[in-house]
Amino acid sequence: MNLLQARPLTKEVFAPFGQVIELDGARQFDINGGTTRRFHDLAAIDALADGGRPIVNLFRAQPRSLPLRLSLMERHPLGSQAFIPLTTRPYVVVVAPDAGGRPGPLQAFITQGWQGVNYGRNVWHHPLLALGEISDFVVVDRGGEGRNLEESPLAGEVEVRW
Amino acid sequence: MNLLQARPLTKEVFAPFGQVIELDGARQFDINGGTTRRFHDLAAIDALADGGRPIVNLFRAQPRSLPLRLSLMERHPLGSQAFIPLTTRPYVVVVAPDAGGRPGPLQAFITQGWQGVNYGRNVWHHPLLALGEISDFVVVDRGGEGRNLEESPLAGEVEVRW
Repeated sequence: MNLLQARPLTKEVFAPFGQVIELDGARQFDINGGTTRRFHDLAAIDALADGGRPIVNLFRAQPRSLPLRLSLMERHPLGSQAFIPLTTRPYVVVVAPDAGGRPGPLQAFITQGWQGVNYGRNVWHHPLLALGEISDFVVVDRGGEGRNLEESPLAGEVEVRW
Repeated sequence: MNLLQARPLTKEVFAPFGQVIELDGARQFDINGGTTRRFHDLAAIDALADGGRPIVNLFRAQPRSLPLRLSLMERHPLGSQAFIPLTTRPYVVVVAPDAGGRPGPLQAFITQGWQGVNYGRNVWHHPLLALGEISDFVVVDRGGEGRNLEESPLAGEVEVRW
């Protein structure tokens, strides 16, 4: 069993894998006569490859508990995938660089407050890992034909700790 | 002063203007080994006109109170605009058919539970009308160059009642 220590999620640590969707540091301005604040363009949506289109979905995740055991990773060769939580409840994000077509060394993060993530196209990540309660996420990813899911079992079991 | 009686928002009444984003009636299936339910492709995102791209934003709206007084409508000639609430708190949606380049007769709706709306490209609507508390919405619309906002003052003041 490999142990993986989770760290707090920040823009800096996540930068190689995509974007953290958060208000802190976002470009922002007032609209609608000052009644609404717009936090602008929070994620790089990449959904058009091979005739794809951006789609909006809701993912309702069953909660897991820490320590978490992981056995596979996945990636989407044809588009990005953004997860935007409906609450500020923490959840776990696990990513890896590519290493010759398989996930390289895993990194685990725990969200802090209202934070979403947008996984870049072809970035290895673990499927959604909610904590505590059933949790809803708005998901913006790619719709359309083509094989947009690749899964890779992990060589040994990994346990995420916090 | 014109009085406008709001009605409950449903897919049927909103169909001429875009889509209601809701779980009821959505195509749905289990993913991630049964740990997540995916409610699939909830809105027709239209963001590519004139070199545009889909962008994800957060809108933080100050609350209004009923009865509401309206004095202008707007539309986006180059793309759709989806509003997805982070809570189930009701808010007000006001739309109108086009009548020769200006808003025709207004229709007002109040959301019921977790409901978002996706305004179709060039559909007249009122800017965001939250109720009760400061309210956050994930907004998916079009980014890029080009004039994508048209505003039209209303001929007389309109009051929305519930």
